[in-house]
Amino acid sequence: MQFHLNGFAPGDPHIADQTKRHPAPGAAGSLPAEVDVLIVGCGPAGLTLAAQLSAFPDITTCIVDQKPGPLLRGQADGIACRTMEMFEAFGFSERVLKEACWVNETTFWTPDRTRPANIIRSGRVQDTEDGLSEFPHVVLNQARVHDFYLDVMRKSPAGLVPHYARRLIDLTLAPATPDDNDHPHRVTARFERGDPAHEGQIETIKARYVVGCDGARSTVRTSIGRTLVGDSANHAWGVMDVLAVTDFPDIRFKSLIRSASNGSMIIIPREGGYLFRLYIEMDKLDVGERVGNRNITSDHLVAAARRIFHPYTLDVKEIPWWSVYEIGQRLCEKFDDVTDADADRAPCVFIAGDACHTHSPKAGQGMNVSMQDGFNLGWKLASVLRGTCAPELLSSYSAERQAIAKELIDFDREWAQVLSSASHADPGISQDNHARTQDYFVKHGRYTAGTAVLYPPSAITGEATYQHLAAGLTIGTRFHSAPVIRLTDAKPLHLGHTVKADGRWRLFAFAGSQDPASSTSGIRSLCAFLIDAPQSPILRYTASDNDIDSVIDVRAIFQQSHETLAIEAMPSLLMPRKGRFGLIDYEKIFCADSRSARDIFTLRHIDREHGCVVIIRPDQYIANVLPLDGYKQLSAFFLSFMMPQR
Amino acid sequence: MQFHLNGFAPGDPHIADQTKRHPAPGAAGSLPAEVDVLIVGCGPAGLTLAAQLSAFPDITTCIVDQKPGPLLRGQADGIACRTMEMFEAFGFSERVLKEACWVNETTFWTPDRTRPANIIRSGRVQDTEDGLSEFPHVVLNQARVHDFYLDVMRKSPAGLVPHYARRLIDLTLAPATPDDNDHPHRVTARFERGDPAHEGQIETIKARYVVGCDGARSTVRTSIGRTLVGDSANHAWGVMDVLAVTDFPDIRFKSLIRSASNGSMIIIPREGGYLFRLYIEMDKLDVGERVGNRNITSDHLVAAARRIFHPYTLDVKEIPWWSVYEIGQRLCEKFDDVTDADADRAPCVFIAGDACHTHSPKAGQGMNVSMQDGFNLGWKLASVLRGTCAPELLSSYSAERQAIAKELIDFDREWAQVLSSASHADPGISQDNHARTQDYFVKHGRYTAGTAVLYPPSAITGEATYQHLAAGLTIGTRFHSAPVIRLTDAKPLHLGHTVKADGRWRLFAFAGSQDPASSTSGIRSLCAFLIDAPQSPILRYTASDNDIDSVIDVRAIFQQSHETLAIEAMPSLLMPRKGRFGLIDYEKIFCADSRSARDIFTLRHIDREHGCVVIIRPDQYIANVLPLDGYKQLSAFFLSFMMPQR
Repeated sequence: MQFHLNGFAPGDPHIADQTKRHPAPGAAGSLPAEVDVLIVGCGPAGLTLAAQLSAFPDITTCIVDQKPGPLLRGQADGIACRTMEMFEAFGFSERVLKEACWVNETTFWTPDRTRPANIIRSGRVQDTEDGLSEFPHVVLNQARVHDFYLDVMRKSPAGLVPHYARRLIDLTLAPATPDDNDHPHRVTARFERGDPAHEGQIETIKARYVVGCDGARSTVRTSIGRTLVGDSANHAWGVMDVLAVTDFPDIRFKSLIRSASNGSMIIIPREGGYLFRLYIEMDKLDVGERVGNRNITSDHLVAAARRIFHPYTLDVKEIPWWSVYEIGQRLCEKFDDVTDADADRAPCVFIAGDACHTHSPKAGQGMNVSMQDGFNLGWKLASVLRGTCAPELLSSYSAERQAIAKELIDFDREWAQVLSSASHADPGISQDNHARTQDYFVKHGRYTAGTAVLYPPSAITGEATYQHLAAGLTIGTRFHSAPVIRLTDAKPLHLGHTVKADGRWRLFAFAGSQDPASSTSGIRSLCAFLIDAPQSPILRYTASDNDIDSVIDVRAIFQQSHETLAIEAMPSLLMPRKGRFGLIDYEKIFCADSRSARDIFTLRHIDREHGCVVIIRPDQYIANVLPLDGYKQLSAFFLSFMMPQR
Repeated sequence: MQFHLNGFAPGDPHIADQTKRHPAPGAAGSLPAEVDVLIVGCGPAGLTLAAQLSAFPDITTCIVDQKPGPLLRGQADGIACRTMEMFEAFGFSERVLKEACWVNETTFWTPDRTRPANIIRSGRVQDTEDGLSEFPHVVLNQARVHDFYLDVMRKSPAGLVPHYARRLIDLTLAPATPDDNDHPHRVTARFERGDPAHEGQIETIKARYVVGCDGARSTVRTSIGRTLVGDSANHAWGVMDVLAVTDFPDIRFKSLIRSASNGSMIIIPREGGYLFRLYIEMDKLDVGERVGNRNITSDHLVAAARRIFHPYTLDVKEIPWWSVYEIGQRLCEKFDDVTDADADRAPCVFIAGDACHTHSPKAGQGMNVSMQDGFNLGWKLASVLRGTCAPELLSSYSAERQAIAKELIDFDREWAQVLSSASHADPGISQDNHARTQDYFVKHGRYTAGTAVLYPPSAITGEATYQHLAAGLTIGTRFHSAPVIRLTDAKPLHLGHTVKADGRWRLFAFAGSQDPASSTSGIRSLCAFLIDAPQSPILRYTASDNDIDSVIDVRAIFQQSHETLAIEAMPSLLMPRKGRFGLIDYEKIFCADSRSARDIFTLRHIDREHGCVVIIRPDQYIANVLPLDGYKQLSAFFLSFMMPQR
């Protein structure tokens, strides 16, 4: 898709008339008096969380933002492969694939040895290593990511729409009472309305849970006594979205440029084919100085960019958005309201995204990590509110995400240093420094793609006891999808794309070498256990009036080609009767893709003789790998955090 | 996507609350007094044409339908590969891919030799041969196809919305006058409104062109004195969309079933994972008998389906739509209003879709051919109305599409006979007949996929003089896409997907073996001709204040990998400056995919030494293949039908 040729215009580029691209309106009327979950802030973390909760009509959610309406321009733009996998679960990956700019390769530019005032291309790497994800790394205006989430929310079972123009005044927590079992509305939040018709009006809302997604200056964070701790920033960078004419040949590649004496710059090509973003290194700040005091204008940014670009030209036609920021990596020690003094209780206030971790934007991590915060917390809140999991589960949010944020901050700090030190080194050693930049970039590709996240063992992430049964599906990492063929209709698809953002757990049962039709095959025995045994987690945690796959969704993958397997011989659990008519769900059984030299068993190093069961969390992470007949371990795994339903 | 589990619900399945899936409203108010094009009928042909015309803000179009609002259920459902390629040009193929059911394989069922009362699976074929198209064959409720077109129209530059509840009363043509050059509004149409608030009101509208897409009982067709000629139908078939439980194992495959003594049935699996369609052979009709006289009910259809299914069971839970029809292949001799008596004038009334060709629905062709009618006519009308082509071009619509429709009718008749005769043969020779069905199915795969369409030489389709330069890109067939890598950003994409439904012609210049940077390379010389020579069709037919690619869009494809080609060395025509800022369009240059064993030059048998120019029509058909230096032929080709702009 090509757009923005005659100037940047916010909103859906499919709508030709720019004046008809109205941003989605907010909810009319006052805030509700009482909700299950109050989300403060319509950024990536808040919207991911809201989209997840909106999948459940039995949960009431309110999401508010201080701004008068949806974001229209600027902010983040990097969308990592891992985030695309999550968008697939939320049902809009195809929209992003179509509209976004794909980052296919990154090029590196350094001073020309013979004429150091000029930059020359010194390297080129594929942006994402082959096979890392079925999705590419893309870039797209953060506002459009918001739009897609808002669309999911609006169309969802809960029909959720944000309340805009609400500034959080304060948050108060009522003390816990003995009858906390029914999740009382312990938190009270007060908001001041900012829309002209209601300016200054105060609204009060009570919530069982409050999540602060309200950015680096989070009022929610302050109200639970947490602070962002970290580096004092002393380096200013400018960021600028431009429509411009240049003879720089790699303007449609992500490019890292290091000039001899004018600093560094990063080029991010953007959606629509014309727009691009520049991250421009500005001056060092004095100790304690804030970038705001420098009075930097967009003219300064353009001038700095031109110096770095030499000998290439830059003729800027329009600047739809620009900003100046200080690099500053900061982190909260905990992402919820539970302190050492009351460590036994479950949390009821959380913080996510920039409210608990800030960093420089250049590694393209901020928006992605924030959205994963929301995805991690979403299913946990939903499970507790719907009574399928005990409230203790909620402590795992801070435990898991704080550690990931810390890794990110460390990575980000190191990356910023690599970029800065490289650019300030004297020309004599610059080639070495440049090589270091490029090496670092390649080495950390998995990190940048978001696929390196690894949750350590916990109640919801198993030990690696049976990891050898699926060596390529590391417990604690996201399920790395692979192509399969659906048995009942021979459709080629990605197994991972069956994991939707619906709060359900998945059991992927990979068959061993036995005849699948045999009455003693591992899959058949597993299904018999799951459908009959008192210890079956499916029977235990699924209310008897719900569909059999509504809490734990079992799918089987066979090694044989689909032509050789008979549907008639499949266990009934894999062809479940569902809904008010008792219709058959035909989408549970898959076969290895026999036309591919490397099928899913090979790609993911699954034990072809014994098979295995892979347990997938609702947020797509691998919770455990167990033997096909590991019924006891399977039972025990869910026992520790799920609540019996019958 | 899974949906319809608890019952069929019309509209966008992404919207959870079925009561909020409001059909798109029609235009409010009266019909306009005067338009360029009046389209009668909001079926597949009319909507394709309307969507095409809506791309041009300078063309006024009115599309009306007799029905009170958009279609919600039933009718056609088959979407051929070729149609998906067209949907890609209209910008919604990804929506169909996501929501539709993919037809991956077809299975064949015949009487069991040993127990003829039972059916058994006798064969299985891949539905679409490998490499036939980059898109699959899919099925989706016709109503959803309408929805996607309505969405394109609404968001288009023209912002087109249908007027519903208008019944065409009559059409009158004013005689041609000497000043016809400015396309006067010669046609007057009168409509009667059917909506309760305006019931019986008469509206009059004048149009330059009228297109009758008003179905088999077309009033437009009658008004120009054309008739559908063809077989008297004497065979009744039932069609039924059902939510049902069955133990028939291939219910998610397209299946052709022939029972020993109960007739034939076709199963079409449908979108959402639960719905399926049955085409059920009913009784033969007496000569002159109409199916309406049989008083067939849905109960009859279910009973007939059950007999054919034996020994498998069918427990029908819901029938969202059903119908009974007679097989009848009929065709008009001409698709416009020009008669032998006035053969020299350009047509101004056209008919498309069922208005000029009807056939049995079982080959899944009707909707597809109708849409291609609309696509064929759309760019021609737009070109004439916008003054880029002479009105004589419009005669090619009937010439091209009537021949295709005739082929379709012949194919359809043969196919219907194969199915019927097979089912009525005595059991002894049934296996032979069955083998004939299966052979026929495979042989005609390209026909069914819509990719066999071949337009013969004409003013807009060249002779095969230089066909050998691209033997795999047959002149007169649709451009068969292949993967390439975009030079400026290394993005892998399909070359054919650059051909959007925007009314533009494309020149795909495939480079020969010369060094592309050389000043005498074929591509460079071609670009020099196109940008400088007085005979250049680009200069001749592009108004000087328009973007250089607004009429003829030149793109080049090189054999080298993208890393080895320098953007800086490319001719300026391939990096054109566009729009009000003069921004550079970076999306014109492509490279063969060096990572693939079979790149586009190999796949399409393009002469690697000499290269060639392939001319693509606005409807994606190959108009000509010429030598890279065939400037004279290139000039001459466009000269015959395009109008100079400077």
